[in-house]
Amino acid sequence: PDWAMAKTKFEYVKQFEQQDPLLPNTWLVVRIDGRAFTRFTQDHAFEKPNDVRALNLMNECAKAVMREFPELIIGFGESDEYSFVFKKRATVFQRRASKIMTSMVSLFAGNFVLNWPKFIIDKDGAPEPLQYIPQFDARCVLYPSDKNLRDYLSWRQADCHINNLYNTCFWSLVRKAGVPEAEAQDRLKATFASEKNEILFNEFGINYNNEPVIFRKGSLLLRGHEEVTITKMSPTSKADPTPIERTVTRKRPAVLVHHTDMNSEFWDARPELLAE
Amino acid sequence: PDWAMAKTKFEYVKQFEQQDPLLPNTWLVVRIDGRAFTRFTQDHAFEKPNDVRALNLMNECAKAVMREFPELIIGFGESDEYSFVFKKRATVFQRRASKIMTSMVSLFAGNFVLNWPKFIIDKDGAPEPLQYIPQFDARCVLYPSDKNLRDYLSWRQADCHINNLYNTCFWSLVRKAGVPEAEAQDRLKATFASEKNEILFNEFGINYNNEPVIFRKGSLLLRGHEEVTITKMSPTSKADPTPIERTVTRKRPAVLVHHTDMNSEFWDARPELLAE
Amino acid sequence: PDWAMAKTKFEYVKQFEQQDPLLPNTWLVVRIDGRAFTRFTQDHAFEKPNDVRALNLMNECAKAVMREFPELIIGFGESDEYSFVFKKRATVFQRRASKIMTSMVSLFAGNFVLNWPKFIIDKDGAPEPLQYIPQFDARCVLYPSDKNLRDYLSWRQADCHINNLYNTCFWSLVRKAGVPEAEAQDRLKATFASEKNEILFNEFGINYNNEPVIFRKGSLLLRGHEEVTITKMSPTSKADPTPIERTVTRKRPAVLVHHTDMNSEFWDARPELLAE
Amino acid sequence: PDWAMAKTKFEYVKQFEQQDPLLPNTWLVVRIDGRAFTRFTQDHAFEKPNDVRALNLMNECAKAVMREFPELIIGFGESDEYSFVFKKRATVFQRRASKIMTSMVSLFAGNFVLNWPKFIIDKDGAPEPLQYIPQFDARCVLYPSDKNLRDYLSWRQADCHINNLYNTCFWSLVRKAGVPEAEAQDRLKATFASEKNEILFNEFGINYNNEPVIFRKGSLLLRGHEEVTITKMSPTSKADPTPIERTVTRKRPAVLVHHTDMNSEFWDARPELLAE
Ligand SMILES: Nc1nc2c(ncn2[C@H]2C[C@H](O)[C@@H](COP(=O)(O)OP(=O)(O)OP(=O)(O)O)O2)c(=O)[nH]1
Ligand SMILES: Nc1nc2c(ncn2[C@H]2C[C@H](O)[C@@H](COP(=O)(O)OP(=O)(O)OP(=O)(O)O)O2)c(=O)[nH]1
Ligand SMILES: Nc1nc2c(ncn2[C@H]2C[C@H](O)[C@@H](COP(=O)(O)OP(=O)(O)OP(=O)(O)O)O2)c(=O)[nH]1
Ligand SMILES: Nc1nc2c(ncn2[C@H]2C[C@H](O)[C@@H](COP(=O)(O)OP(=O)(O)OP(=O)(O)O)O2)c(=O)[nH]1
Ligand SMILES: O=P(O)(O)OP(=O)(O)OP(=O)(O)O
Ligand SMILES: O=P(O)(O)OP(=O)(O)OP(=O)(O)O
Ligand SMILES: O=P(O)(O)OP(=O)(O)OP(=O)(O)O
Ligand SMILES: O=P(O)(O)OP(=O)(O)OP(=O)(O)O
Ligand SMILES: [Mg+2]
Ligand SMILES: [Mg+2]
Ligand SMILES: [Mg+2]
Ligand SMILES: [Mg+2]
Ligand SMILES: [Mg+2]
Ligand SMILES: [Mg+2]
Ligand SMILES: [Mg+2]
Ligand SMILES: [Mg+2]
Ligand SMILES: [Mg+2]
Ligand SMILES: [Mg+2]
Ligand SMILES: [Mg+2]
Ligand SMILES: [Mg+2]
Repeated sequence: PDWAMAKTKFEYVKQFEQQDPLLPNTWLVVRIDGRAFTRFTQDHAFEKPNDVRALNLMNECAKAVMREFPELIIGFGESDEYSFVFKKRATVFQRRASKIMTSMVSLFAGNFVLNWPKFIIDKDGAPEPLQYIPQFDARCVLYPSDKNLRDYLSWRQADCHINNLYNTCFWSLVRKAGVPEAEAQDRLKATFASEKNEILFNEFGINYNNEPVIFRKGSLLLRGHEEVTITKMSPTSKADPTPIERTVTRKRPAVLVHHTDMNSEFWDARPELLAE
Repeated sequence: PDWAMAKTKFEYVKQFEQQDPLLPNTWLVVRIDGRAFTRFTQDHAFEKPNDVRALNLMNECAKAVMREFPELIIGFGESDEYSFVFKKRATVFQRRASKIMTSMVSLFAGNFVLNWPKFIIDKDGAPEPLQYIPQFDARCVLYPSDKNLRDYLSWRQADCHINNLYNTCFWSLVRKAGVPEAEAQDRLKATFASEKNEILFNEFGINYNNEPVIFRKGSLLLRGHEEVTITKMSPTSKADPTPIERTVTRKRPAVLVHHTDMNSEFWDARPELLAE
Repeated sequence: PDWAMAKTKFEYVKQFEQQDPLLPNTWLVVRIDGRAFTRFTQDHAFEKPNDVRALNLMNECAKAVMREFPELIIGFGESDEYSFVFKKRATVFQRRASKIMTSMVSLFAGNFVLNWPKFIIDKDGAPEPLQYIPQFDARCVLYPSDKNLRDYLSWRQADCHINNLYNTCFWSLVRKAGVPEAEAQDRLKATFASEKNEILFNEFGINYNNEPVIFRKGSLLLRGHEEVTITKMSPTSKADPTPIERTVTRKRPAVLVHHTDMNSEFWDARPELLAE
Repeated sequence: PDWAMAKTKFEYVKQFEQQDPLLPNTWLVVRIDGRAFTRFTQDHAFEKPNDVRALNLMNECAKAVMREFPELIIGFGESDEYSFVFKKRATVFQRRASKIMTSMVSLFAGNFVLNWPKFIIDKDGAPEPLQYIPQFDARCVLYPSDKNLRDYLSWRQADCHINNLYNTCFWSLVRKAGVPEAEAQDRLKATFASEKNEILFNEFGINYNNEPVIFRKGSLLLRGHEEVTITKMSPTSKADPTPIERTVTRKRPAVLVHHTDMNSEFWDARPELLAE
């Protein structure tokens, strides 16, 4: 067959592709979430309720995404999910939704698999085997106002807080007090935050506010600078040109991990984040 | 702050998510394509124009996708891309476009990274280092009629044929005849397939039809069965119950790689593919 | 201000318009429905449950739409709604959804208002006043297979049948037997079609099948031909060229109203409707 | 056939309808435009370049739309088009795009037809016949920021200004100076606004700024109040209860037509328009 003619004849099918440009001048959030991680975390015996190795691995993947997509200004991760915020004027892939979410999620997933052996290790530093390749879903969500965006991030952070307080309580009851799971669930059902705090304190001597901040507040990625120490040879002095080894510290742009509440003080202190 | 109340207050932002269900009863193709693979293949010194190791790696990833999404009936890969065909009635993720494409592409990317050291090896079997994590884009495309779907697959296969014939010619001129790249391009520009065949035959003694079929026709994934040999202990006979070791062959469902033209004969021979 | 420069500066806002092309090669149905016609029909004292004047008016509007959009092949109306079917290959407005539905619905509404005094008349032929301008909504729906399209039309026709049988029964009980509305509703609730037929027959002497077919089956618009009689002057004969007045009948394309079940016989008898 | 069962069997087709909710908390503009009004205005011998009767008719239709959709805050009309602005928080039809634009456009079109004989009249007040029913298209456009919305309105107003200046010039040359149309076009091509103003002034004694403001600035609809005079019978005084006829003036909400530039002063003077 004449393949060139064939191609011409067939390429009408390209017109069936739907364009999916996202509204301009609008905050664009891409949220990635592990598929069926309830199962995945069991199959890999993750620490309950929080496995700090897993959170660090997620952060590593998210940093790679932030480095690769320069229009991202914020990342926020908790549990098996990560939210990424593009600035309002972002023109990444001409704001084509499919392109954006699939490129990001594939990069995230590739990093997850590659960095697994570096992060998911036992006490002796030996990597735990990855039983199978995890999947992640991703979605694009638009927020027209700054308030909507802040509320979005607060929503995810509130989710983190609530789940973590509940889970800390639940697993203390189950693991430390030997309460059967169903009973623990029953007891916590419909309790207020204050009551959970009291259970933790009175029954387990845990001051919830002393729990690791990464568990309580999630991980926030922001652009900043890191100091790097470079060793180089340079002349001793103008008089004596013999080169000697020196360590110099430099600042270079980097994605930094924070664990902090995204409240009014936070935003007020960083006006550049929401600036045009 | 009261995080439970906070969450209630903030979760209105969930309503900003757009639903994206795909039309029912329509062929659904998901095409995955490597991002900036022109660069990626250079950075990893892939064989030109085709690196069979890379094609095998792509096939491995695609098989994993087919195994994971049972409603997929066909896969077709060439170059840095793979197309997956869901049956018309597929209800995967309630046909939600974002969920489908992101889950698939993340699985593909994870497999690519994990299987890299198994496939991209040098002559001595040592893995080539992966310089950085590749990205893949993905998109959902709908085809209402069987003819549209067949034409889609023919389009991708014609693309494979045309590029491969051109590239085989181009790199023969450049590598074997020492023609400068610009000159080779000039010479091939506007030639017909027959002329390219002749150049290959007359100047390089290459019968294009003898080129590896995986390069010429791409890789087609279909469900089939593979024979597996199981070794098990079973009684010698009814009379003598002493168990002895036996090898038995069994058939089990598998995703099989083909290299064949998707022409009328192909479809006529496999009516089940397009059956309701 | 310099308006030309102003316009250049502002016209970036055009890019916020979303394109909305509909999938090619797919049956396209546009359904129009009167907004709040429960109220509108009361405010205009329409005959209950069916006002044949109103149905005729709807048909008139729908014919105007069919005449204006040549790619429409079928119209089907009942109650305050009309469905229009474009052929699969229709390229009207490049299949832009908004353009299609708004142009059609505006034409429909304009016809409704203009033709109101011709159709909604009292026994003496005097037009009833139109109290206010009615609104209509419209939507585009895609159907990939012929079966889906046929089922769509059957769905609307079944809706017509069911509502009409119920309403005929209900209003007979209320109007003719003086049953209070709540009681009538109670009695009909959960009855089968056969039971409603019996009530009509036994209690009111009505054979439902003799009810007007336009009420029972809705109105189906198809393209056909109508005979027109033209009066013209033409020569008496070759011998005698004196022109005399003659009436000639001609056939010309027209949109015709049918009242018939869209069942298998219907489709089998009109293969051209679903032909490519 | 059993129609109830039939309906159940067929109503799966309802699932093929696509939902089309518009992003919340975003300015929503619906723009309506006459279809093929170049032709329609010729067929009805509209005054060139502006027919004030037609503009008044458009305004009447737009007012009806504003009255019917209380969440509309602004209307702006020029030529054969009208833009309507919903407040950011509008929840009309749950922000379903199709519902919104079709209901509005059908109401507009119905009003156009109904009010035609009241507005499109000759010098003696006799209505000009409406040759055929006009169509209008409509579209929904979202604007995330106040600035985007203001720019949108400025864009349409700049369009009005530019077209009107050009057309006033063009038709003066053609009608008053007898310049052939092609020549007039040639002469105006690539002239600046100032040059067109000079042509008007020097050659036709027209001060463009004295042209009717409705032509130059378009029509802006805003909500306000109108005074109404009501005649009622009320007691003469406490002492003398005999009722006498009195005229009272009341204010009631109304949609008012303005012809003004939507510049910074305009917005500054009406902060309530863009307020949350
Ligand atoms: N043990 C353990 N489990 C975790 C950790 N992080 C997340 N998980 C689990 C808790 C939840 O069951 C699950 C995350 O919840 P999701 O709502 O995302 O559910 P899942 O991924 O199962 O389903 P999905 O496919 O997202 O709908 O992952 C961790 O650090 N340790
Ligand atoms: N050397 C070599 N290159 C290959 C092989 N397979 C694919 N490539 C290269 C050839 C093309 O430059 C590129 C695939 O073309 P694309 O149109 O997908 O371009 P690319 O991925 O650069 O850009 P994109 O991000 O997809 O728009 O990958 C291979 O086996 N060997
Ligand atoms: N009396 C009378 N009523 C009719 C006739 N045709 C339709 N209707 C009424 C019956 C229903 O109440 C209404 C049509 O039902 P719909 O489901 O379209 O409801 P409606 O238009 O009120 O609300 P909608 O805005 O469409 O959601 O119109 C007629 O010929 N005579
Ligand atoms: N003579 C006259 N013409 C007018 C008047 N208002 C509008 N028109 C004409 C001028 C333009 O030819 C036309 C409006 O331009 P459009 O860009 O909307 O074009 P048209 O409606 O023909 O095509 P369309 O279907 O909207 O793409 O209507 C008027 O007051 N007098
Ligand atoms: O996945 P869930 O249940 O946390 O909630 P969701 O992500 O909003 O649901 P889905 O993944 O189905 O969009
Ligand atoms: O990527 P190309 O250039 O082969 O063509 P495409 O995939 O249709 O283009 P895009 O990736 O931009 O959708
Ligand atoms: O209007 P209904 O209730 O007959 O049903 P619908 O048309 O599917 O509902 P909507 O008009 O809200 O789309
Ligand atoms: O109709 P035009 O040419 O003024 O411009 P448009 O309205 O943006 O074009 P379309 O009606 O085709 O969307
Ligand atoms: Mg989820
Ligand atoms: Mg998950
Ligand atoms: Mg999760
Ligand atoms: Mg591409
Ligand atoms: Mg590529
Ligand atoms: Mg490619
Ligand atoms: Mg409805
Ligand atoms: Mg209705
Ligand atoms: Mg209805
Ligand atoms: Mg237009
Ligand atoms: Mg127009
Ligand atoms: Mg116009």
